[in-house]
Amino acid sequence: MSKNPPLLYADTGSNPDQLYFSRVAVHDPFISFGFGSKRYSVQNALEFGRVLKARTFDKVLSLEDCVAKARKAYPENKVGTAEVIATLAKAHRVPSFRVADDFPAALFTKLRDLGLKLEFANGPLFPEREIKSAKEAAAIREGNRLSAVGFAVAEDILRRAKIKKRELIFEGKPLTSERLNFAIEVAILEQGGRAEHTIVAGGDQGCDPHERGHGPLRPNEMLILDIFPRVVKTGYFGDMTRTYLKGRASEAQRKLYATVHAAQRAAIKAVRTGVDGSAVHGKITAIFDAAGYETKRGKTGSIGFFHGTGHGLGVAIHEAPRVNAMPYILPRDTVVTIEPGLYYPGLGGCRIEDVVQVTDRGPKMLSSHPYDWEIR
Amino acid sequence: MSKNPPLLYADTGSNPDQLYFSRVAVHDPFISFGFGSKRYSVQNALEFGRVLKARTFDKVLSLEDCVAKARKAYPENKVGTAEVIATLAKAHRVPSFRVADDFPAALFTKLRDLGLKLEFANGPLFPEREIKSAKEAAAIREGNRLSAVGFAVAEDILRRAKIKKRELIFEGKPLTSERLNFAIEVAILEQGGRAEHTIVAGGDQGCDPHERGHGPLRPNEMLILDIFPRVVKTGYFGDMTRTYLKGRASEAQRKLYATVHAAQRAAIKAVRTGVDGSAVHGKITAIFDAAGYETKRGKTGSIGFFHGTGHGLGVAIHEAPRVNAMPYILPRDTVVTIEPGLYYPGLGGCRIEDVVQVTDRGPKMLSSHPYDWEIR
Repeated sequence: MSKNPPLLYADTGSNPDQLYFSRVAVHDPFISFGFGSKRYSVQNALEFGRVLKARTFDKVLSLEDCVAKARKAYPENKVGTAEVIATLAKAHRVPSFRVADDFPAALFTKLRDLGLKLEFANGPLFPEREIKSAKEAAAIREGNRLSAVGFAVAEDILRRAKIKKRELIFEGKPLTSERLNFAIEVAILEQGGRAEHTIVAGGDQGCDPHERGHGPLRPNEMLILDIFPRVVKTGYFGDMTRTYLKGRASEAQRKLYATVHAAQRAAIKAVRTGVDGSAVHGKITAIFDAAGYETKRGKTGSIGFFHGTGHGLGVAIHEAPRVNAMPYILPRDTVVTIEPGLYYPGLGGCRIEDVVQVTDRGPKMLSSHPYDWEIR
Repeated sequence: MSKNPPLLYADTGSNPDQLYFSRVAVHDPFISFGFGSKRYSVQNALEFGRVLKARTFDKVLSLEDCVAKARKAYPENKVGTAEVIATLAKAHRVPSFRVADDFPAALFTKLRDLGLKLEFANGPLFPEREIKSAKEAAAIREGNRLSAVGFAVAEDILRRAKIKKRELIFEGKPLTSERLNFAIEVAILEQGGRAEHTIVAGGDQGCDPHERGHGPLRPNEMLILDIFPRVVKTGYFGDMTRTYLKGRASEAQRKLYATVHAAQRAAIKAVRTGVDGSAVHGKITAIFDAAGYETKRGKTGSIGFFHGTGHGLGVAIHEAPRVNAMPYILPRDTVVTIEPGLYYPGLGGCRIEDVVQVTDRGPKMLSSHPYDWEIR
């Protein structure tokens, strides 16, 4: 990877690299860059004081001052972001920067035209993002606490719901995915998080991993809740999944749940510094195979276990490392989800997901919530 | 502007151009492009069926099929997004595309290396985005209905709050910006919207346009509520602001409110096809000047009316046209906010914001909520 200092132009809400580098929320795009081992940013008058106070940058420069200098340096140009960056690079004697692969192309082209050397990260801009400090692990743990808040609310509603023939009735009205989702998201909002795209998918809907769930929930059907809130204060994500069933589970459903849970425990146990993620994944497929659960990929849909075991999470919901059939040695202090699942239309879908940090002595749990799943 | 067909590679959640072009939500980046007057997209197996069913594209291609073709076309390459796009361009005989200025730079570079001609939009990728159809206007109106839901909830809480010396007490506890904000956001979530970064800023906090508001709200202080929810179903935004005061307003506060409201009415009345936005802005500054409200810009902060009159909105919260001191002829069917404000620390901040569509016969209101602001 390029050893050049990083250059970013983005806001922190939509760009995880910028949030990781800045550690303070700024909602409009701004310039930030590395200078030696230091981190600099350029802020306009509206943001300057707030960003300065956050003390997350080694230096905060005034955009208005930078624009004035760029006007002197490029008297012929209509001065924009490119001229400001080029002037800064010259003043700080930084001959070349590395930029993210998703750096804005027009700005990239203008900077090169102004003589700046830019190299693509060609992968993650900050490969060190996958290694989580104690503070980052705590932020992820807080995200998972918010996921668990969602489960608690959902369990309470499922417990209080009445079974009437093929319907679940809660507070006089049919219980739907939408109502359960609303209760979950409100509870998380109240505790300082934002959950979006939460999955509340019952029955066959739970067998389609891109189906968020809609309409009435049914008794005696498996129900997948996948809740991945972002902590508003830090921008870090939690990500947990539990599977429930309101009513009475069949023997086949119980076997499905027990197998997924056993596979998850075995995979979690295998997590340790230096272990190959594909070996962790293999623990799961071995248990599924031994229990006779077949995986088939089809054009119209797949059955069995057809996704990866897990992914890193942090200021992005999906980041390195990936845990799947591809070899990837898990470095110390990375954080990954372990989320095996089995999906069979007719029987239902079951997924259980927790989050662990990789340590030399094994997995360190960053999520915690019971696995009681049959709700009478 | 380039007449080349557009090429996009983005998800619809973070990229308004992709949402505008696709009109169906897809949460991972995907390829879409224009082919003559038709719109094509490439979807993986997980999304293919859902996007096909939405019927928003003239043609949906299978990513897996496209990758297979790209592997044949580029047997030497590790086939990625660039090779897939280059193969599609060749198959459809599209020699060149136009791309957004924020198109990902690494992909841009690879595509050029593969011989594709790419031109930057050099401004908006879809300039026609500023013109709103009846359906789009209805979607924005729905966003504003959600803003009004927020005002109604806030007014109810302010009405029920008790004044105790310098505090507002609601349900036994001090009323804060955070509590009011939570009630607003929950009500909007319940009705199908998501409000983020809502401004609930009282007293001097309301004088800083980047302050969202925090801590206890005080009686007899002006309180700015700026609510801009996104409608989950369509992705379109509403954006309205009302100013309140719990307790009894001083004469100076009443004059401030009346002046901002009069200026807003005058500006709205001036909106019409072909009018210059700077003339609309001028209606406001003339009324503020005549009433003796001074505007001063300082390094540590500004007072008076120091922002623009308004902005377009649609699938982005800020888009063309801008209504401010810069000349900009307002085209028919564009939609803009009209949001004058006056800010004086010590006295308070006041902003009133509505949304209008530009028509040949004048302004068409797309927002509606009363202006009663003193709550005893």
